[in-house]
Amino acid sequence: MLKTRLTQAFGIEHPVVLAPMDVVSGGRLATAVATAGGLGMIGGGYGDREWLERELGAVHGTRVGCGFITWSLARRPGLLDLALAHEPAAVMLSFGDPTPFADRIRAAGVPLLCQVHTLDQARQAIDARADVVVGQGGEAGGHGVGSRSTFTLVPDIADLIAARAPDTLLVAAGGVADGRGLAAALALGADGVLAGTRFWATEEAAVSPLAHRRAVAAGGDDTVRTRVYDIVRQYPWPSEFDGRLLRNPFVDRWHGREADLVAHMPEAVAEFHQAVAEQDFDVANMIVGEAVGQVREILPAGDVVRRMAREAAERLGRFAPETAALTG
Amino acid sequence: MLKTRLTQAFGIEHPVVLAPMDVVSGGRLATAVATAGGLGMIGGGYGDREWLERELGAVHGTRVGCGFITWSLARRPGLLDLALAHEPAAVMLSFGDPTPFADRIRAAGVPLLCQVHTLDQARQAIDARADVVVGQGGEAGGHGVGSRSTFTLVPDIADLIAARAPDTLLVAAGGVADGRGLAAALALGADGVLAGTRFWATEEAAVSPLAHRRAVAAGGDDTVRTRVYDIVRQYPWPSEFDGRLLRNPFVDRWHGREADLVAHMPEAVAEFHQAVAEQDFDVANMIVGEAVGQVREILPAGDVVRRMAREAAERLGRFAPETAALTG
Repeated sequence: MLKTRLTQAFGIEHPVVLAPMDVVSGGRLATAVATAGGLGMIGGGYGDREWLERELGAVHGTRVGCGFITWSLARRPGLLDLALAHEPAAVMLSFGDPTPFADRIRAAGVPLLCQVHTLDQARQAIDARADVVVGQGGEAGGHGVGSRSTFTLVPDIADLIAARAPDTLLVAAGGVADGRGLAAALALGADGVLAGTRFWATEEAAVSPLAHRRAVAAGGDDTVRTRVYDIVRQYPWPSEFDGRLLRNPFVDRWHGREADLVAHMPEAVAEFHQAVAEQDFDVANMIVGEAVGQVREILPAGDVVRRMAREAAERLGRFAPETAALTG
Repeated sequence: MLKTRLTQAFGIEHPVVLAPMDVVSGGRLATAVATAGGLGMIGGGYGDREWLERELGAVHGTRVGCGFITWSLARRPGLLDLALAHEPAAVMLSFGDPTPFADRIRAAGVPLLCQVHTLDQARQAIDARADVVVGQGGEAGGHGVGSRSTFTLVPDIADLIAARAPDTLLVAAGGVADGRGLAAALALGADGVLAGTRFWATEEAAVSPLAHRRAVAAGGDDTVRTRVYDIVRQYPWPSEFDGRLLRNPFVDRWHGREADLVAHMPEAVAEFHQAVAEQDFDVANMIVGEAVGQVREILPAGDVVRRMAREAAERLGRFAPETAALTG
């Protein structure tokens, strides 16, 4: 239906990539996306070897890729060997300089996806000879720099690629949740999309039904970029990164009062961990992006892939009669 | 070429609207955009009656619209009468509740455009019976709320309009600078686009050649949202608004140190006004959005309109053969 350089390079049916969401994108979700004709990705995240081994082993009947948080992988570089031993369809590196890992990935014959949030990071990815640059705007859920948006970052990177490395592919991320988003991303110059929030809200995602229910009820205005949860989780994120997630009373209490939060750490950390255990999402975090407003039901992941591709093709085809007169 | 509900409703050739940029969008620029087949808009801005009268009078051979900063118009409501006396093609209200002005505009038979930055504001615009909702993402130059991006705000508002007021038109703003942006906006569900930065960088814009030169050299990563210039200009912007503009040494010095700036007010204000007089853009402000990265030359405004429409039609047409098999 929608053939692009991405579908050709990866031998997939639809130009749709699953975001390798930490914990959420396990073997079950990655398998479902890949089986439906997209590129499935397992979320290696902060680097839990046991989890990663189990989820890579849970993939069946297809091949999927694996994503890592680059600064975290630098502390546990052996996890890359674990992933490469499974002959992944791709490795994706996000949040940090990919250069130290690029050679090993290339030597294994595995395509390298590098996620970037600014033009400067895109230059770094191209210099590291990424096969695919994933340009992620600040509307995305989860971590990022937040200074650029998908709508301008994608054409900016497309121009950079055209000038410096025209064989490099470009995938748009951030805010893509349906066929409109896929169609728009292709119009902006991308070869495909990477979606997180929309796959977070699928049956195969490792997400609590309670969290799913809140996401369906939420609107696009209900997310915020914050460092509050990095503080209480005590994750050493480099200072340029924050993350978008669903607002809740805990965020409303502490966002903008981070120094105060640090001063209340033992209690706040205990409160957070208890809330996670009890699935109390007034306090626990729900990592979704602005596209949560377009999530109205929890679907099978395969339906999301196929529907996104079909709607995009229909939407783009709608403009054809008008342009025929021009180009004919 | 690209017929949409917007071109039909306004009797224009291309679905492209000039942002009513304060001071920058004068009679000359609005005339150039309208003459080329777009919708030209004069930037009523903070409400300088003499300037507005002169620029409305400078329009020739066509009709254009006029835009106001709503909270500022509330202090000088007579300016709306001045604009309406010129039988404008449209009135656009941004930054505040449009309700107090909507009846007078409708009674004059003039279409009302309401610019919004969130879904909540879109609901307010629909309740005020706006003819056109302009959904502006935070990538835009100038003021806004900055919490939403074009890529998700447009489909969210499209869904809201479909559910609550299907005859209302939708225009996408924020980050649109070329045919890719127009094509993407249509794919996301808009009936057209409103562009600021790209028209700021035209021959007819009331912008210093020195500023134009800096914009051509700037990249998409070089803008930032800040309140620094609202502080030194002593404009009473409501607290939810900040504005995106080009970074420079003055912004780098004060952004994030606003309390300190307030403590240094007399000197900072004097420094700012002197810099404006001397066209020293290391200190004076340049109000452009993320799309500045796509500005590589200063063009006649009419060329921008025609090129944007042609490139969008070509880009959308490119997808037609692939989709023909699906829909045929």
